[in-house]
Amino acid sequence: MVKLKNDRFLKALLRQPVDKTPVWVMRQAGRYLPEYRKLKTKVRDFMTLCATPELACEITIQPLRRFDLDAAIIFSDILTIPDAMGLGLHFIPDKGPRFDKYICSAADIKALSVPDIEDSLSYVMDAIRMARREIDGKVPLIGFSGSPWTLACYMVEEGSSKYFSKVKGMMFEAPEQMHMLLNLLTKSVTAYLNAQIIAGAQVIMLFDTWGGILSSEKYQQFSLYYMHQIVQSLNRKFEGHIVPVILFTKGGGQWLEVMANTGVDAIGLDWTTNLSLARHLIGDKVALQGNMDPCVLYASSDRIRQEVSSVLASFGKAKTGHIFNLGHGIHPTIDPEKVRLLVNLVHCLSEPFHQ
Amino acid sequence: MVKLKNDRFLKALLRQPVDKTPVWVMRQAGRYLPEYRKLKTKVRDFMTLCATPELACEITIQPLRRFDLDAAIIFSDILTIPDAMGLGLHFIPDKGPRFDKYICSAADIKALSVPDIEDSLSYVMDAIRMARREIDGKVPLIGFSGSPWTLACYMVEEGSSKYFSKVKGMMFEAPEQMHMLLNLLTKSVTAYLNAQIIAGAQVIMLFDTWGGILSSEKYQQFSLYYMHQIVQSLNRKFEGHIVPVILFTKGGGQWLEVMANTGVDAIGLDWTTNLSLARHLIGDKVALQGNMDPCVLYASSDRIRQEVSSVLASFGKAKTGHIFNLGHGIHPTIDPEKVRLLVNLVHCLSEPFHQ
Repeated sequence: MVKLKNDRFLKALLRQPVDKTPVWVMRQAGRYLPEYRKLKTKVRDFMTLCATPELACEITIQPLRRFDLDAAIIFSDILTIPDAMGLGLHFIPDKGPRFDKYICSAADIKALSVPDIEDSLSYVMDAIRMARREIDGKVPLIGFSGSPWTLACYMVEEGSSKYFSKVKGMMFEAPEQMHMLLNLLTKSVTAYLNAQIIAGAQVIMLFDTWGGILSSEKYQQFSLYYMHQIVQSLNRKFEGHIVPVILFTKGGGQWLEVMANTGVDAIGLDWTTNLSLARHLIGDKVALQGNMDPCVLYASSDRIRQEVSSVLASFGKAKTGHIFNLGHGIHPTIDPEKVRLLVNLVHCLSEPFHQ
Repeated sequence: MVKLKNDRFLKALLRQPVDKTPVWVMRQAGRYLPEYRKLKTKVRDFMTLCATPELACEITIQPLRRFDLDAAIIFSDILTIPDAMGLGLHFIPDKGPRFDKYICSAADIKALSVPDIEDSLSYVMDAIRMARREIDGKVPLIGFSGSPWTLACYMVEEGSSKYFSKVKGMMFEAPEQMHMLLNLLTKSVTAYLNAQIIAGAQVIMLFDTWGGILSSEKYQQFSLYYMHQIVQSLNRKFEGHIVPVILFTKGGGQWLEVMANTGVDAIGLDWTTNLSLARHLIGDKVALQGNMDPCVLYASSDRIRQEVSSVLASFGKAKTGHIFNLGHGIHPTIDPEKVRLLVNLVHCLSEPFHQ
């Protein structure tokens, strides 16, 4: 194991003192980078990028070559698991992910099984191994998966949804059926993330993109319950190193206390949640990751500086426990130079908070 | 003034004891009703329905003929004000509202002025007067408007938006420009709602559909600040009657305390907020309206009964202060019989809570 040259991100996740607030950017490896877009023109489709370890590794590294980021995240998609289950994932330009078949009935669910991770998702582990070699201990590498509820949303709804009426229809009308699906996904996600840890992922993040469309009660029953199981079943100590886990429910600002009680190391926050209020609610139990509105990056340098200061100040003077990030993935139309500015501003402006 | 035959809704808004929990449904006058769809085929477009008082009145009454609702809401659209400002509102089937021109610059904003309500929006007041005569004191009539921030979102973004990058871009980059627009809209909305009260609206509701896309800080500066001004400037006593005001920020569950401090009578909640937690936070200062997930109405009668019970129980045993509603507008594909069931269930199952 190479010793990390920059362990600021890991330290902040474990609430150990750091010199500066670490920063990375959700979707930092992706469409806003010209070198990514160039590479994309050479392949048939998005899934080819994910499923070709050399390409996924290259894309993972691209933002590290440009910016002084404190973490890398493996380039992949949250929907690799349903694809490995045989649903047939593809991407329609300007529309997003689609499957060849969808889950409509109990029979459809019964026909599914936990995929053989080492077989059907070996391309992800290969990409992680390659990326670890390439990164060479510069910064830690994050592995990830969609949450069971989020995967279920995509597997049941056909295409993007305004109301999520199909997946919610199943949840309200046939809750036991939905639980069957979520159980299966929980087993799959756990196996998948543990395989990522063995392959070299040093931090794990669970993306619960659609937990926030649920009521408080249903969120706990249908999303958090399963993420809790996953958090408890991960190999969070690997080769003597702690593997911290981050939980991110978009729109989950009302449920921080129950999220913190799952035993995660950090909670990702979107920009609707005030960081000082979040700290007040859950104390130093977990680290907080976030939470600048990605739209700030459309503004001028002066305005970006103001907003970065404001996010840092809202977390307040604590020697650790904050990882700066956007509150959601970076938009594809952002100028990469704005990311350079962001990263430098966070490092520069955060120093006084850690003294 | 005709004395109200059913004043359950008004009483609950003013936290006076009621025999049963009052219930109405956001978008109860609209597309899920066959008689509405039939009427719609006879006109050129959606705006003709809004701008023809006889039709708007008829649509307002339609759900009252079918169901034992405790309130009526005038049929109109939240975007009548920008239309009256000359932006030219029209609706594209399956896509939603569009304007002929959008607000892109300070010059565009300077060219706008507060519309002459009695002139350009007289059709709304006429519809309210007609509907009041038709309803004949059966239940109270709600008047409404979009919030300044929500109107600004539609006026700046072109069409539906995933990221709201244009309106947020303006907010971050040129906040004084955005404030200029919001000031103008605040004056317009205030004049508009006061005219609705004079015409006969007995309750006022402010729909802040897009406040929830903001950070906590920006919500207070760019949305709540202006709604607060409106609430303070409304003629809330008219001809000896109190005119209660309801504030609804979709996705505003994290900001209930500051919303309650505006002096409103009630807060509308979407389904992500737990009612008992909301009561715990803001006490009996304001009434709460909501908050069943509209998707519940896709389920069977038994499941609907369970969810209605669950919403009533989460508010708990209090003699008043709860108005049952969905957490968002009813979906167009819902069977009207499910609304009948819902209304009857709320009345029937809520009685024990008021004894």
